[in-house]
Amino acid sequence: MARLNDHYLKLAAGYLFPEISRRVDAFSSANPEASVIKLGIGDVVLPLAGAVRQAMHDAIDEMATADGFRGYGPSEGYDFLREAIAEHDFAARGVKIDPNEIYASDGSKCDSANIQEIFAEDATLAVSDPVYPVYVDTNVMAGRTGDPDEGGRYAGIQYLPCTEASGFMPALPTEPADLVYLCSPNNPTGTVASKDELAKWVEWARANESIILFDAAYERFITEDHLPHSIYEIEGARECAIEFRSFSKTAGFTGIRCAYIVIPDELMGRDSKGEPVPVSQLWSRRTNTKFNGTAYPVQRGAEAIYSAEGAKEVQSNIDYYMTNASLIKEGLTRAGFTTFGGVNAPYVWLKTPNGLDSWKFFDALLEKANVVGTPGSGFGACGEGYFRLSAFGHREQVEDAIERITKGF
Amino acid sequence: MARLNDHYLKLAAGYLFPEISRRVDAFSSANPEASVIKLGIGDVVLPLAGAVRQAMHDAIDEMATADGFRGYGPSEGYDFLREAIAEHDFAARGVKIDPNEIYASDGSKCDSANIQEIFAEDATLAVSDPVYPVYVDTNVMAGRTGDPDEGGRYAGIQYLPCTEASGFMPALPTEPADLVYLCSPNNPTGTVASKDELAKWVEWARANESIILFDAAYERFITEDHLPHSIYEIEGARECAIEFRSFSKTAGFTGIRCAYIVIPDELMGRDSKGEPVPVSQLWSRRTNTKFNGTAYPVQRGAEAIYSAEGAKEVQSNIDYYMTNASLIKEGLTRAGFTTFGGVNAPYVWLKTPNGLDSWKFFDALLEKANVVGTPGSGFGACGEGYFRLSAFGHREQVEDAIERITKGF
Repeated sequence: MARLNDHYLKLAAGYLFPEISRRVDAFSSANPEASVIKLGIGDVVLPLAGAVRQAMHDAIDEMATADGFRGYGPSEGYDFLREAIAEHDFAARGVKIDPNEIYASDGSKCDSANIQEIFAEDATLAVSDPVYPVYVDTNVMAGRTGDPDEGGRYAGIQYLPCTEASGFMPALPTEPADLVYLCSPNNPTGTVASKDELAKWVEWARANESIILFDAAYERFITEDHLPHSIYEIEGARECAIEFRSFSKTAGFTGIRCAYIVIPDELMGRDSKGEPVPVSQLWSRRTNTKFNGTAYPVQRGAEAIYSAEGAKEVQSNIDYYMTNASLIKEGLTRAGFTTFGGVNAPYVWLKTPNGLDSWKFFDALLEKANVVGTPGSGFGACGEGYFRLSAFGHREQVEDAIERITKGF
Repeated sequence: MARLNDHYLKLAAGYLFPEISRRVDAFSSANPEASVIKLGIGDVVLPLAGAVRQAMHDAIDEMATADGFRGYGPSEGYDFLREAIAEHDFAARGVKIDPNEIYASDGSKCDSANIQEIFAEDATLAVSDPVYPVYVDTNVMAGRTGDPDEGGRYAGIQYLPCTEASGFMPALPTEPADLVYLCSPNNPTGTVASKDELAKWVEWARANESIILFDAAYERFITEDHLPHSIYEIEGARECAIEFRSFSKTAGFTGIRCAYIVIPDELMGRDSKGEPVPVSQLWSRRTNTKFNGTAYPVQRGAEAIYSAEGAKEVQSNIDYYMTNASLIKEGLTRAGFTTFGGVNAPYVWLKTPNGLDSWKFFDALLEKANVVGTPGSGFGACGEGYFRLSAFGHREQVEDAIERITKGF
């Protein structure tokens, strides 16, 4: 029989979210009368913005005409979108990014999953713990790790603990690491790296010739002005960082699919002879060989969020979710919980009460309050004893959930 | 510096189509008055079908309402699309495929590029020559080959020559191969495997415990009734084949992005201990870890091509392109060229006149007739001395091109 990629079989059987679904389905079957409120998976709920809808309609009508039809687009994305991104997401904050350094895609999950491919099979890596599972799982699948230990940590990965004591910021790696995944605002802890903290990372990466894979998918949710939205706000980051951005949560694109990554021209890696090679050269080759761009109407929809009307609508949705975040944080605090995040990120990270482990708290919350969240341990060993609640819900649900939790615990 | 995936650097500098663009741009700059007709890249030109447009509009409007909004969809595709595919593309031809065996994606290029990932790094492979470059390049990038020789053939790949003498059908591999890429109707030669020929392949694959990666992206262009549209029309194929299908050429989706693959439940590979594992288990894991589904409006658009109106419109577009193919084939034959394909595929494969090599003919055709095609050698060593013309063009352009070629040669 054809030989399979055995590394896949090292992965823990269930991806986190399917396991949550399984438990919720089992509970709902046993308790059909219970109205379950889901604040687990970070999925948006507000309708598509009017400006996005209109732009997508227009693009579809354009493609239904003889003159306006468009076939294959550029794999890296249309210039109109890359230029809008460069202007509004970067130049507007004083950061110079050339449109050609921007690669549009069909999602940040894909980007953060695919990026490891262009690095050596024996490239060393460090991840914070807790962490978005995709960073780790895709490296396991690529054969960069050994088997997991009992706590789910894979041999060959350097885990950087994010604990309450360190304000949930990872310490700098002590072992060599070609690649480090950083996520700020952080999923799941909701904490944000300050400029000083990022500067420390950039300095470390440059001194060690490492590359920071900086996931800024939640930057739009930052409410405090002094915090950086992009790693390129830090001097020297162009030589050591790739940045990931997404339209999923900001513009409600989880079902529409558009994101992008930035690879600055100066960013170099080395081949097996030690010769420097631009990282963008490999990513461009990957993009052109394995991808054909994201749909034209989707790219027009993404462009529309930078219009005056689109920007206003998107901001109003973000404000709505951040009000949810405040309500969750305040409600939980009133109810006696210790909480983190929720101020510059759409996630509230809470300490489970009475020393319950994360999954036990998940079960208790589901049973007593009929509320679904995400067990912190699903994001890594250091997430044990913590729990994530997502602010992506309808207001009434959030208010109901808080009331039930306050009563139930 | 971070270590890069050195295998990428084995790839020939230019992907075929960028090199064509470069030469065309140079010619157009030097001859600004020349009106160049492009029958090179296989990209559709007819407007999006009305049924598709309407379905996409409806889906977007639905997503712009509070009740109709949809966030993350199932990574493998929505059931409505998978069920429509199972019914219309398979059951209607007497082939039983369960909707759960169908994985919708954002394109056949992505699918045929990504599939190799779930197989072992040292899995052996065979490809026909000439061949769609993505099959080879993605395996080079994954490290399954050595360096290319002077003719561009990579060490470690078993090439199966498709020559005029063999009717452009590859012979069965003589060396072991875990994976064989087959494409029928074939890009670039336009030839189609008969049921008997496919049966021979299925028998070989089962006897050798190999897997056939069967690319049927052009099956809708088959005009002769006795030819198979799916490898699953052959008994035993469920145990040895994965099939790739695309909406790109049939429904004009090159800019909309939707395709699918079929992995039957029975298809097994083996892990490094020799234990059988369902191939679908790994693909499902890959899909859920690295992909978030293709856009909801795109999937609704794809579903619409199976409606009565959609099917009629799609067929009318296919007929248009196949009339182009006839005109090209007849015109070239009248002009004294030897041609192949063009009857059950939207590509005409021609022998270059006077023993010209493929790129010399490319340059001559561009210079004398201002017509762009694709050099056969770009698809592999056995394509040398051949040339591909695509039927995806506007009728007037096709007629013009034929007239110019007839006059010019």
